[in-house]
Amino acid sequence: MKKLLFTPGPLSTSATVKEAMLEDMGSRDHAFVNAVKEIRYELLELANVTTEEGYQCVIIQGSGTFAVESVISSVVGQKDVLLILANGAYGERIIKMAAIHNLHHHILRFDEDEIVTAETTEAFLKAHPDVTHVACIHSETTTGLFNPITEIGAVCKKYSKVFIVDAMSSFGGVSMSMKEMNIDFLISSSNKCIEGVPGFAFALCKKSELEKAKGRARSLSLDLYEQWKGLEINGQFRFTPPTLSLMAFRRAIAELHEEGGISAREKRYKANKKVLDSGMADLGFKQYLDPGIQGHIITSFLYPADPDFNFERFYEKLNDRGFIIYPGKLSKADAFRIGNIGQLFPEDVKKLVQAIKEVLVEENITVAIPQ
Amino acid sequence: MKKLLFTPGPLSTSATVKEAMLEDMGSRDHAFVNAVKEIRYELLELANVTTEEGYQCVIIQGSGTFAVESVISSVVGQKDVLLILANGAYGERIIKMAAIHNLHHHILRFDEDEIVTAETTEAFLKAHPDVTHVACIHSETTTGLFNPITEIGAVCKKYSKVFIVDAMSSFGGVSMSMKEMNIDFLISSSNKCIEGVPGFAFALCKKSELEKAKGRARSLSLDLYEQWKGLEINGQFRFTPPTLSLMAFRRAIAELHEEGGISAREKRYKANKKVLDSGMADLGFKQYLDPGIQGHIITSFLYPADPDFNFERFYEKLNDRGFIIYPGKLSKADAFRIGNIGQLFPEDVKKLVQAIKEVLVEENITVAIPQ
Repeated sequence: MKKLLFTPGPLSTSATVKEAMLEDMGSRDHAFVNAVKEIRYELLELANVTTEEGYQCVIIQGSGTFAVESVISSVVGQKDVLLILANGAYGERIIKMAAIHNLHHHILRFDEDEIVTAETTEAFLKAHPDVTHVACIHSETTTGLFNPITEIGAVCKKYSKVFIVDAMSSFGGVSMSMKEMNIDFLISSSNKCIEGVPGFAFALCKKSELEKAKGRARSLSLDLYEQWKGLEINGQFRFTPPTLSLMAFRRAIAELHEEGGISAREKRYKANKKVLDSGMADLGFKQYLDPGIQGHIITSFLYPADPDFNFERFYEKLNDRGFIIYPGKLSKADAFRIGNIGQLFPEDVKKLVQAIKEVLVEENITVAIPQ
Repeated sequence: MKKLLFTPGPLSTSATVKEAMLEDMGSRDHAFVNAVKEIRYELLELANVTTEEGYQCVIIQGSGTFAVESVISSVVGQKDVLLILANGAYGERIIKMAAIHNLHHHILRFDEDEIVTAETTEAFLKAHPDVTHVACIHSETTTGLFNPITEIGAVCKKYSKVFIVDAMSSFGGVSMSMKEMNIDFLISSSNKCIEGVPGFAFALCKKSELEKAKGRARSLSLDLYEQWKGLEINGQFRFTPPTLSLMAFRRAIAELHEEGGISAREKRYKANKKVLDSGMADLGFKQYLDPGIQGHIITSFLYPADPDFNFERFYEKLNDRGFIIYPGKLSKADAFRIGNIGQLFPEDVKKLVQAIKEVLVEENITVAIPQ
């Protein structure tokens, strides 16, 4: 049975994206080198910047976290100070990286159900002029909220801070302009809104800042500058790349264009989200976040009030019906998550909601406490 | 045109291995978690050890180098001293890792065309009792030589040193027993002799040594201990795994068994190597290494004596005929490399030799200087 993935990635991808992996590729072969060149060019274009404007794309093997760590551990120098804006597990992950690499850093924490605000960030930067770099998550997959990176980017510009954005689960599903948003480093991965398969991630970098990373890295594999130089010198990776994941990704970018680009994809994801919101509300489910800060990538739903609700059984029964949902990651509430990115369409979301309804009936679960 | 890869990996893989990637997989889904569990179990079995005997398998996202760095930067403690036995680019890479992570280390260098010897290693260990860990490459892909890791392992045992073996390009193509060879950490990757596609690597670890790595890692992504703990707790990866590369790998292991296991595969690779050796000798090519130290994975052939030989053109013309060979990496001589691992059979090697012959005639190249 073909299963539909309502997760934050790995996602459901098209058959043709996966079929692009059916031919072996030499990692130093011209056909592959050209594909990588094309991907790096296209990714910058999707962020509305070009190499002529001073931006560069670096592809990093491994998961999205590897690319975030590559940026964090390569661009923050020994005398630099990183401010981490955190309101979820992915912000906390950057804090862990800063600690393990002994980076000078400050932490500005917000509650999981609150967005990072530009005002608080500005006040912090005023009070801490030692800060040189600011890191923020765009779409906090922990909850599904969107942090206001445009406003935070404006503050970073005003105070001349290097702005690092983890846009893992949003890039490709939200229109973004790195230049207009004053983003110096934007990180995402192959298996999110571009709808490729997992295997690598990428950092879109302001070249002038990337060049400063020379000799700063704290590891060999995650050296952002050397990875870039390797790709620039002869188009090849320093270390074996996931050749077939990259071939799938090239196909995925082509299919993104066929769909009408990021704006069309954003529209589809929002349509999915609308069906999900109304369908789940009809079943009595409450969302964890205030709708005003909720993004259109993934949604956290509170567990039903019914004490008999068992998430494992709920998950299994949906899985048996071909629908894979995602567990929660909240520190303050019991919730599960449903993503609506990937090769999912409003009719798929309708089917998921119907399946959820069936499982609730089968399990005899009351979602909302009767008023 | 389907191309055959005569490289050290990514390799030619079977159609069925690649077809195992045609179904999307959730990274927290039971089907996937079970596949990972099976792979970890099977990999230990291929190294002739079990969890009951105190061995563990840790899978690491990224290329083989990521896994080598994960081991090196996680298991060598602040007060430990690493001895690196180097006779090629991959030994030099471990030296780079030791330097970037500020590990206490010694280097014992051998010429590229010489193997590391147990005698020299023993003399060094006698003279440097501070050494706690020893790292060595098994199949040095730079040249294609095999270092005598059984003998070096015996020396490590005698002097109670932790033995780390980079068996990247040999594991799966050479019968090995971690226990008998006294190997504490053995590293290889998905796209070598197991004949999977690229995307991840793995470290087979003596559990008692792996446990000592707790809190020692110098990065978040490459923390070997935490990666292991993550896999042990719930079978899931800490960070997004290359789901489809893993599904392909599970199929590749099944096909390795179908072929008759590692001994049968070793036999096929040796048969390939024999056809390559005699065919290339007939054309006048000289090998870089003494046959006594040459492994059966990859061979370095010296450039033809003819000054008109142009490697780029040679490579291109073979590529046009569907054969991908590999450039050289020697510091002292001009050579190219031909691998004979992956889904290659003696008849494929014959076709390659025939194609090389045709290209030489077309290019009017004399290989050997007439005596």
